[in-house]
Amino acid sequence: LKKGDILYQSEFISVDPYMRIYTKDMTPPYKMIGQQVAKVVESKDPDFPVGTRILAHVGWAEKGIINDKKKARVQKAPTDLGGMSPSHLLGACGMPGNTAYFGLLDICSAKKGEVVLVNGAAGAVGSIVGQIAKIKGCKVIGYAGTEDKVKWLKEELKFDYVFNYKTTKIEDTLDEAAPGGVDCFFDNVGGHDANVVISRMKHRGRIAICGAISSYNVKDLVWSAPALQPLLLGKELRIEGFIVSRFQDRWMEGINQLVEWVKEGKLVIRDTVVDGFEKVPEAFMSLLQGGNTGKMVVKV
Amino acid sequence: LKKGDILYQSEFISVDPYMRIYTKDMTPPYKMIGQQVAKVVESKDPDFPVGTRILAHVGWAEKGIINDKKKARVQKAPTDLGGMSPSHLLGACGMPGNTAYFGLLDICSAKKGEVVLVNGAAGAVGSIVGQIAKIKGCKVIGYAGTEDKVKWLKEELKFDYVFNYKTTKIEDTLDEAAPGGVDCFFDNVGGHDANVVISRMKHRGRIAICGAISSYNVKDLVWSAPALQPLLLGKELRIEGFIVSRFQDRWMEGINQLVEWVKEGKLVIRDTVVDGFEKVPEAFMSLLQGGNTGKMVVKV
Repeated sequence: LKKGDILYQSEFISVDPYMRIYTKDMTPPYKMIGQQVAKVVESKDPDFPVGTRILAHVGWAEKGIINDKKKARVQKAPTDLGGMSPSHLLGACGMPGNTAYFGLLDICSAKKGEVVLVNGAAGAVGSIVGQIAKIKGCKVIGYAGTEDKVKWLKEELKFDYVFNYKTTKIEDTLDEAAPGGVDCFFDNVGGHDANVVISRMKHRGRIAICGAISSYNVKDLVWSAPALQPLLLGKELRIEGFIVSRFQDRWMEGINQLVEWVKEGKLVIRDTVVDGFEKVPEAFMSLLQGGNTGKMVVKV
Repeated sequence: LKKGDILYQSEFISVDPYMRIYTKDMTPPYKMIGQQVAKVVESKDPDFPVGTRILAHVGWAEKGIINDKKKARVQKAPTDLGGMSPSHLLGACGMPGNTAYFGLLDICSAKKGEVVLVNGAAGAVGSIVGQIAKIKGCKVIGYAGTEDKVKWLKEELKFDYVFNYKTTKIEDTLDEAAPGGVDCFFDNVGGHDANVVISRMKHRGRIAICGAISSYNVKDLVWSAPALQPLLLGKELRIEGFIVSRFQDRWMEGINQLVEWVKEGKLVIRDTVVDGFEKVPEAFMSLLQGGNTGKMVVKV
């Protein structure tokens, strides 16, 4: 180590759907991107003594030396987690949590009494979206891909309606759960079903495009759909794509609120922890197939 | 006439593309909707003496009795038009003008130095959109369907780039006029070319869906296009459909500003006046084929 260096050892490595977008057109070999929770195990930087827990963006790596802390976006992790696993700093109380928080409250402007629909509802973002919507007094409709997830969302997260999108027809579920239409659609998935939801929005409904996971593994995507423009016009709908980094200036507002809700027991958090650094690729592939409930992380 | 009634005689009747949407699925015979400038020719309402010029929404009618002024949305026309034809109260200084004003400044949030693209650029709304964008210091790209319109937009309205969409390829025009992308797209037309523009937006670009005239005469529209969602996500774009009536509370802010700009010579206004009440249907059909430059009205 040179002066100012730290040697980190990863504790939890994050795998996230967005990684697929960034790496889709890259030719291997390349180093995978991403965030981790890590501990400083050797240090030549007095501000980061051995034992300091950090958050960093150095990709899929078990350990390594960081010299440029700005480039690696190194932050000290909060020391008082009140018993919460530090893995949640990558999930409900980290980037996915903030994505849910700002996406629902700012991009969708969800308000008390409104109908909020979220797909990928058992995922790291979706499971928080639905719960924040409940905290705010909305009616929540969720979609997930296994019966276990559906059960979890209904019974533990108290969503009002939950459907298994693999065994139901989207039109039927909307007839049942949202006969009057949808105010806010938090779209993590895209594809056919998403377009049907857009056709069932209420006047001046808001649609946040947070992800389009149904398209990430499609090569040369030409995913044809009835054009949305006439529909947007008549109902004065607003659709907005967003990436949570635009809320960087308000980052801690989101995190602090999420942590507060966890402490108050208003937010149920859960992650799917895969054990062993060598399992990172497997975990990532599983994530894209819906193998997770809540945030998926790899314990190193 | 009963107490409170007025008998109006229309001076100018408005024909607008939106009428096609509302009447598309109606079975004749029905009375066409719309606004006119009219004069009170007989009156049993002391607030509206004979000779009063009014704006009303009583559809395609030469003359008639109004009893419910609220239902007919009757307003007194401004008395000092400074030499401007009252027909412009249906155009640049009326609903289409406000559509341009609020659509560009509120829905698109156009800012100085940005690239603004408008189609249907020689129409009642488009011709004002481009000029307000110039007033605000934007670079303006317009599309119209005849050489005369292109010339007018370039030479008199001072648009930076104008293309005849019938004789050019949208991709080529964008390569030339907006190689770095488009910040604000004011879409009056929809269809294939609009989707290409959306694929050429800058990061966090804004798209106002004001009209979709290319679709109004298509029956059972299934206008298929590559799905927009993945594109919206990556560039964090915002698309919003809007109808100008949502700005009702700020209506006079728009009108007063438009009138001010006309007086200052900053806004060139023009309408296409068709003569004779019996020509209203013909004028309307011509409008949908691009037969107008600026607002189309019928002089009764």
